[in-house]
Amino acid sequence: MAPDEEPRPWEELEKLIEESDAGRVEAFLDTLPGGEAVLAVSRLSEDDQAALLTTLDPEEAAELVEQMPDAQAVEMIERLEPEAAAAIVDELPSDEQADLLGDLDRQDAEAILNEMSPDDARDARELVQYADDVAGGLMVKEFLSYAHNSTVADVLADMQANAETYQDFDVQYAYVTAEENRLVGVLRLRDLLLARRSRAISAIMIGDPQTVPDTSSLDELRATFDRYQFYGVPVVNDAGALVGVVQHADVEEALADRSDSDFLKSRGIVGGEELRTMPLLVRSRRRLAWLSVNVVLNIIAASVIAMYQETLTAVIALAVFLPIISDMSGCSGNQAVAVTMRELTLGLVRPTELARVWLKEVSVGVINGVVLGLLIAVAAILWKGNAFLGLVVGGAMAANTLVAVSIGGTVPLVLRRFNMDPALASGPILTTITDMCGFFLVLSFAAALLPLLTA
Amino acid sequence: MAPDEEPRPWEELEKLIEESDAGRVEAFLDTLPGGEAVLAVSRLSEDDQAALLTTLDPEEAAELVEQMPDAQAVEMIERLEPEAAAAIVDELPSDEQADLLGDLDRQDAEAILNEMSPDDARDARELVQYADDVAGGLMVKEFLSYAHNSTVADVLADMQANAETYQDFDVQYAYVTAEENRLVGVLRLRDLLLARRSRAISAIMIGDPQTVPDTSSLDELRATFDRYQFYGVPVVNDAGALVGVVQHADVEEALADRSDSDFLKSRGIVGGEELRTMPLLVRSRRRLAWLSVNVVLNIIAASVIAMYQETLTAVIALAVFLPIISDMSGCSGNQAVAVTMRELTLGLVRPTELARVWLKEVSVGVINGVVLGLLIAVAAILWKGNAFLGLVVGGAMAANTLVAVSIGGTVPLVLRRFNMDPALASGPILTTITDMCGFFLVLSFAAALLPLLTA
Repeated sequence: MAPDEEPRPWEELEKLIEESDAGRVEAFLDTLPGGEAVLAVSRLSEDDQAALLTTLDPEEAAELVEQMPDAQAVEMIERLEPEAAAAIVDELPSDEQADLLGDLDRQDAEAILNEMSPDDARDARELVQYADDVAGGLMVKEFLSYAHNSTVADVLADMQANAETYQDFDVQYAYVTAEENRLVGVLRLRDLLLARRSRAISAIMIGDPQTVPDTSSLDELRATFDRYQFYGVPVVNDAGALVGVVQHADVEEALADRSDSDFLKSRGIVGGEELRTMPLLVRSRRRLAWLSVNVVLNIIAASVIAMYQETLTAVIALAVFLPIISDMSGCSGNQAVAVTMRELTLGLVRPTELARVWLKEVSVGVINGVVLGLLIAVAAILWKGNAFLGLVVGGAMAANTLVAVSIGGTVPLVLRRFNMDPALASGPILTTITDMCGFFLVLSFAAALLPLLTA
Repeated sequence: MAPDEEPRPWEELEKLIEESDAGRVEAFLDTLPGGEAVLAVSRLSEDDQAALLTTLDPEEAAELVEQMPDAQAVEMIERLEPEAAAAIVDELPSDEQADLLGDLDRQDAEAILNEMSPDDARDARELVQYADDVAGGLMVKEFLSYAHNSTVADVLADMQANAETYQDFDVQYAYVTAEENRLVGVLRLRDLLLARRSRAISAIMIGDPQTVPDTSSLDELRATFDRYQFYGVPVVNDAGALVGVVQHADVEEALADRSDSDFLKSRGIVGGEELRTMPLLVRSRRRLAWLSVNVVLNIIAASVIAMYQETLTAVIALAVFLPIISDMSGCSGNQAVAVTMRELTLGLVRPTELARVWLKEVSVGVINGVVLGLLIAVAAILWKGNAFLGLVVGGAMAANTLVAVSIGGTVPLVLRRFNMDPALASGPILTTITDMCGFFLVLSFAAALLPLLTA
């Protein structure tokens, strides 16, 4: 190995794990700069990962699990004994508990829940009921709430008595509830600071607080946090009872995860996640799921070429331009797909607004189609010295660019409207249609002008 | 128009803007459900958008500007008179001020800065010096800091006197500084609550606090927040002086923005953003910048086909398989690109680890190449009844799948290593190489077996 090679912290880590010295392992992880701990742990063998988690004390292990990518965290936890796993999961914030347990096999999750502390298990069971990307699934149960008839002194006494437990809570606000846990107000910590201790908190709370329903979508939550400078928003159920608090950072993190997952899906990673530490057959199978659909679609599209074999034989130069037009139409259409996906994410377009998007795309498509058509026509004329060949391939390119942006701009809207995933399905639909259409345009134009092309 | 058409809140908004009634405009915007306000404002004409911002009071206008996508917010602000723009920018948090001013023309930004309140302008000028995606560019100046020799009573008096100003601050923590603004500790608000008022804050602060340098990258910040349950982290400069606070939510938001921008770039939207409300020529030009590079690369790749015209004429069926192999190799390679981009984002791979990634990709590539090769071979044999044609196209497909995943997995690493943008450049490099290689494999195999194919 070259002497200037980069450090391999996982080798050192392996040695320390073998020695089962929690203190030294922890100290070593602390010396690693940001992100290197994740890299090092990800490179350990499965057995060493399990040994690492059981060597560290549960709080340290939980901190490590939180840093790992979700898919890897799940694998690491499911390889532990339920008791050891539960000790670690107990130390996670409630929203992370729910995410992790929700991703485990039902049986594994139950086994861990049964070993968890009863309070945490109850909270986690409640959160697991919700989808990952609604307020109920994103909220935490770690918040402070007090009955509306408490005094300032009561609150301060509680905070003092439970200072340890509240360590990781966001205590900027406390929530004030009436009968049946109905949320009636928000208490700012700074107001507590300055109030007489005998006052009722209902006298200093801010009434009628902003809330979100537990079914709020990620986009609705984003809109709420974009609008108000909140660090967290209380979540209420149908009955108006306070069930949790959604934090701004958790919403932004979920948005980033969704973007990353969409990126992977749009590139053909079914499920939206692949790490190279996953088993070979899992990786291969997920990729093949996508590829095998595409190969069938490709054969269907290329069958258009088979119908024009005579034209092709007569003007073999056309075979050079078929892949160019197929690929360029894919490029143009994918740009339109990306912009529609972006506008959907930002809430700047409704899934029903096909006409609006189509008109906006057609105007770009005309300009870009003419430019690309001219470029390819010039290339054809320079190569073969036949202006009609330029006309055929340039005309087909221009027309198919228009087709591609029309399809690309609107397909994600149609898929969204029918509750299908535009990230996963837009690409294959787009390229199949534009390929068929592109091959047909080139070859039918050529067939029509055949005498001029072979002159 | 159909009676069941969706509401068009922008039409109502236009009417209210015409009446210049700030109260009614504000009330109307408040009635719109999450996200609909953004949609409505984005659909207004440029003049109506400007009129809307000047009709609302600056605080309300700033709230609206914050909700708009960044690119649109910049356009809206730059169309206002500097004085009106400054009044609105003054109401934004300091990090948003800096983002907005940094995206404006230098001249426009200067004009606005000159009209802003001197304190805000000074802060904004400081933040604008930093890149958007380092701690210095993401931090806010809205935080509380006190000299280490202050007493608890001093701090409480200051908080009471400036309650209005501190309204939007994160006051979970206050920061304690020594001479030359050097950060020496963190003060938890809850500890203030319970301390005697005559005590020095240096006695109740947490010393030696976790900090990040102002040059910290987004990935380093993510690692910090993944590791510690902080809502914000103090930012220090070279000299150890406290210059700002980075909030967890702002880091997550910047990560989401980066993912979205990478998604758009990888799909050929140069600059990483396009909204359909942008001017037609801007949209067309940005897309063409990408398309014109691609058309040249495509012509280069397809020139391989031109060298084998004789082989193609002899076995015209090959022309059907060329686009299939080109497209499928693109699919396989793009999957590998996506996984590498993902692992780079998560810090699970270093840009130098070409061999590791290549080996991981080869193992998937062999399996998937064999499966795809068999599929396409069977299709060829069923169509033409010639086993050698199946051998040629299947063999080429299998070999080129291996090439595609090898290139796709490693190209983003090489680009990152040379500080180029893997999101923008990986795709075109991948498809050009895999196209050339795929065409060469099919046609050279066919040329070698020509007598058997034409038998």
